[in-house]
Amino acid sequence: MPSAPLSPTDRTTATRGRHRMVDDRAALHALLDEALVAHLGLVVGSGAEAHPLVLPTAYAADPGGPDDGGSLYLHGSVAAGWLAPVLAGEVCVTITVLDGLVAARSGFHHSMNYRSAVVVGRPRLVDDETERARALDLVVDQVVPGRSATLRPHTRKELAATVVLALPLAEASLKVRGGGPVDDEADVEAGVWGGHVPLRLVAGEPVADADARDVAVPSDVAARATALGAR
Amino acid sequence: MPSAPLSPTDRTTATRGRHRMVDDRAALHALLDEALVAHLGLVVGSGAEAHPLVLPTAYAADPGGPDDGGSLYLHGSVAAGWLAPVLAGEVCVTITVLDGLVAARSGFHHSMNYRSAVVVGRPRLVDDETERARALDLVVDQVVPGRSATLRPHTRKELAATVVLALPLAEASLKVRGGGPVDDEADVEAGVWGGHVPLRLVAGEPVADADARDVAVPSDVAARATALGAR
Repeated sequence: MPSAPLSPTDRTTATRGRHRMVDDRAALHALLDEALVAHLGLVVGSGAEAHPLVLPTAYAADPGGPDDGGSLYLHGSVAAGWLAPVLAGEVCVTITVLDGLVAARSGFHHSMNYRSAVVVGRPRLVDDETERARALDLVVDQVVPGRSATLRPHTRKELAATVVLALPLAEASLKVRGGGPVDDEADVEAGVWGGHVPLRLVAGEPVADADARDVAVPSDVAARATALGAR
Repeated sequence: MPSAPLSPTDRTTATRGRHRMVDDRAALHALLDEALVAHLGLVVGSGAEAHPLVLPTAYAADPGGPDDGGSLYLHGSVAAGWLAPVLAGEVCVTITVLDGLVAARSGFHHSMNYRSAVVVGRPRLVDDETERARALDLVVDQVVPGRSATLRPHTRKELAATVVLALPLAEASLKVRGGGPVDDEADVEAGVWGGHVPLRLVAGEPVADADARDVAVPSDVAARATALGAR
């Protein structure tokens, strides 16, 4: 039910800053559409030797995917060391976009503006070939929208070398901070400056490979760079 | 020994893309200086109920800090739910800067350019008041360099409400990807375009609080915005 509000569980509810929790599933999907990097958390080892590991990774979300709440797709090499621990238990995927620096009137109230989604769950190994190819296309299109349709199909060898995982977006939460600092009144009255500095990810002009200097930049790549503010 | 090369252990060595591992400790510290957000991974619960949790957080690094390899400082509220599990075992802190989109000639070789540090270890609860205040200043200066020196000192109440943790930078690794795609020769010969789109975080002009519109933007905040490309 992609349109249902988010219903964070104890595991995905912030213990601090609960007023920054957002229960709008559309806002979650807007963040998942915009962001580029996910941080995948897993538990490696067991018992006293267990420790967490957090790895940056590409991803794509499909609000209409077959998992409860929609599907968050991850992919990797069949030879990746993290694959066995990921399939042995639950994972946490956190996707954060940084929106600004918050310069408060005291050190204590300094902060950052951000949107951050936290998803906890047990990943499903995607084995249906149609869903696998579609998920991999979505991951490519997350990097450059529309690009997968312009490329040759995945080869059998590529598909055999790649693992695709789907995490249900059922147990997901979204936390958002925006605007300026929340300062103590005495510091405001003291006349100290307070405010924020907006931040955004900006693209430069596309850089062609040495082998591609005589080929025009494809419209999907050019559009991606322009959408991200390339001048 | 901040100048010693990085010596990743099995726990921090990539099982894939090992050629992208960088053993230059100066490069690690350059990344830690530049980035703004860390992703803190911890294990919540135990036994069959254990699951990872990944939370975005501010941080600061001190190459000369008292921990083995230097200190990575984190802070939070004494009331934070993640505090008990963090102190009960090991954590993983991953700090990633996204440098570009890699548009390859096949979906399989699409990628992103990034620098990512992974640190695993047992955090130390910082209880020395001098080190605590210094660490909190470093976290503020990570957001706006030089700002802590311009602010009033932390109050006793603020310090009592804040937990400071130090993670040794001993077990740390750095992985870097740069440049264009690594494509199959047949796809290059087919004349498909391949290249990359550089990305960087860019600041807008500082936005003053309603209460601060008559106060000049302080030079530290203005310099931060300018350094991050505000026009």
